[in-house]
Amino acid sequence: MPSVDTLASTIQLAIFDVDGVMTDASLLFTETGAELKIFNALDGHGLKLLKAGGIRLALLSGRTSTAVNQRAKDLGFDFVYQGIADKLPVLYSLQAQLGLSLADMSYMGDDVMDIPLLRRVGFALSVPNAPAIVREQAHYVTKTPGGHGAVREACELILNAQGKLEPLLAPYFS
Amino acid sequence: MPSVDTLASTIQLAIFDVDGVMTDASLLFTETGAELKIFNALDGHGLKLLKAGGIRLALLSGRTSTAVNQRAKDLGFDFVYQGIADKLPVLYSLQAQLGLSLADMSYMGDDVMDIPLLRRVGFALSVPNAPAIVREQAHYVTKTPGGHGAVREACELILNAQGKLEPLLAPYFS
Amino acid sequence: MPSVDTLASTIQLAIFDVDGVMTDASLLFTETGAELKIFNALDGHGLKLLKAGGIRLALLSGRTSTAVNQRAKDLGFDFVYQGIADKLPVLYSLQAQLGLSLADMSYMGDDVMDIPLLRRVGFALSVPNAPAIVREQAHYVTKTPGGHGAVREACELILNAQGKLEPLLAPYFS
Amino acid sequence: MPSVDTLASTIQLAIFDVDGVMTDASLLFTETGAELKIFNALDGHGLKLLKAGGIRLALLSGRTSTAVNQRAKDLGFDFVYQGIADKLPVLYSLQAQLGLSLADMSYMGDDVMDIPLLRRVGFALSVPNAPAIVREQAHYVTKTPGGHGAVREACELILNAQGKLEPLLAPYFS
Repeated sequence: MPSVDTLASTIQLAIFDVDGVMTDASLLFTETGAELKIFNALDGHGLKLLKAGGIRLALLSGRTSTAVNQRAKDLGFDFVYQGIADKLPVLYSLQAQLGLSLADMSYMGDDVMDIPLLRRVGFALSVPNAPAIVREQAHYVTKTPGGHGAVREACELILNAQGKLEPLLAPYFS
Repeated sequence: MPSVDTLASTIQLAIFDVDGVMTDASLLFTETGAELKIFNALDGHGLKLLKAGGIRLALLSGRTSTAVNQRAKDLGFDFVYQGIADKLPVLYSLQAQLGLSLADMSYMGDDVMDIPLLRRVGFALSVPNAPAIVREQAHYVTKTPGGHGAVREACELILNAQGKLEPLLAPYFS
Repeated sequence: MPSVDTLASTIQLAIFDVDGVMTDASLLFTETGAELKIFNALDGHGLKLLKAGGIRLALLSGRTSTAVNQRAKDLGFDFVYQGIADKLPVLYSLQAQLGLSLADMSYMGDDVMDIPLLRRVGFALSVPNAPAIVREQAHYVTKTPGGHGAVREACELILNAQGKLEPLLAPYFS
Repeated sequence: MPSVDTLASTIQLAIFDVDGVMTDASLLFTETGAELKIFNALDGHGLKLLKAGGIRLALLSGRTSTAVNQRAKDLGFDFVYQGIADKLPVLYSLQAQLGLSLADMSYMGDDVMDIPLLRRVGFALSVPNAPAIVREQAHYVTKTPGGHGAVREACELILNAQGKLEPLLAPYFS
């Protein structure tokens, strides 16, 4: 099998699940049914770096939340899909729309409905808090749990594999 | 004693406590006395799988929360009991109503008021965050803490013991 | 030095700090300045058991929160003091009011303003998340962190030392 | 290299990042886009001790939150800067305004935009939850994670290095 760095080196579109990946899988509800979402500041800057590195960002969630829409907009996501029960058609639609090979797309997910995508994309990522059967489908499982910097770890891995991380961080060292 | 898998293999009704089991025991209050509840996305999908496997779901809580009602509805719970100081009569009522043997019912709880049920059902589950005296009454203590996937672990264990997990997940591997 | 059980065996009034003891020290604010408090369900039932064991409960906090008032009322606290910069006069006032010896009072706290009370009460408790200089003043540091069951651990310890825990839990085993 | 205590011994202005330092990097949003912030009570008292020790406090955040303004006011911060994309000019402006040497200023941060300040101040601090490339720029990485007492640990370290901690805490032992 090719190394993780080899798999990450050609990614042009990075797709992320929300609950359990950009969050720690907590679902926080008020008495009136409103939902609060808990994202992570380190993840946010990682996604901005990824985009600055020329990689497009897609968000693909089984649930629906207005807080997710707002967060995705703030972070510059190119594509946002929520309330998607069957995620595979969206993967193929993105592929067709962007004229990409599946080998150039990454997906990061944490539950069984993510398995079809993890088995098809060029670079499949999961988190330590995912069930074993999901983690086994991933090329890479982050060391950091979802919602605590897992997405940041993924972004740095991809940028580093493409030789883009050091130049992107160089201004901070000038 | 029969193995955990043997005990789990006949379960037809799975009953769950809320605080400490479907949550991490946090009780979150606003200044106006409103309560927020923090559930877990992995647990949610585990409960949907359990129901898809033909097992009925009951929720049995000592406290009362409208957020719990909404969550139970979204997840397809068949029975929801809140504000129950003495839980044992509810257990017997469910048994009579469904014509089940206690051996066919599981209960998952984390505090001393759950002990009477843990000592009577066919398959008793608890969580690592429960007091020792409660954990000692359970046939199985999950590895995952309450609110962080303990219910998911329980659901997969029961489905696996009944030979239903692999067929339920097969579509994700097609 | 007398054993922890000996110190706990005569306690008639148990006094608790709030932040860091009944919570994990998180201070959660909304944009309008409102504060949310995160308590723990296991702690709640421990306090009810302590009261059922004939021990009076006092809450003594340096901060002020309406959520704390409501929670203290629900749990049956006998005394609630909030917004107390200098806690020592309250300790002496409770002592005089109840005609107790300091040896019969416990205090559980996590920060330096709690040190004067920890050094005076008969049984001083702290939490693993407290600064070292505070923990060093306690007769007992709970294994469980504040907000995750530390108060429950304290309640069971005191009841057990007084031979009251087993009789209080006996009904659950009948 | 001088010891951490030597570096901390001359600090007259302590500057803190917010997300990931005064919080655990969680970004909590409601459905209407409102943001909640989770601070730490131990950090709060540490900052009050630092100020009582004659050290000025500055807050310097890339994001903007009204909850941060309120918290900074409650804790007696001398300077509050939010929404600052490029933090370096603020560092130089504070230096000029107070007539300080960079050697007399500390900065505590957790992300790459903090690197320019960490590389310039006399005493640079980071947190265990920061990316490796950020931690490598710090003279001291706290043992406690951000939002769980990291700022408290920093405050005690600085006060102790200046011989001020013991006298400030002496009243609690009288």
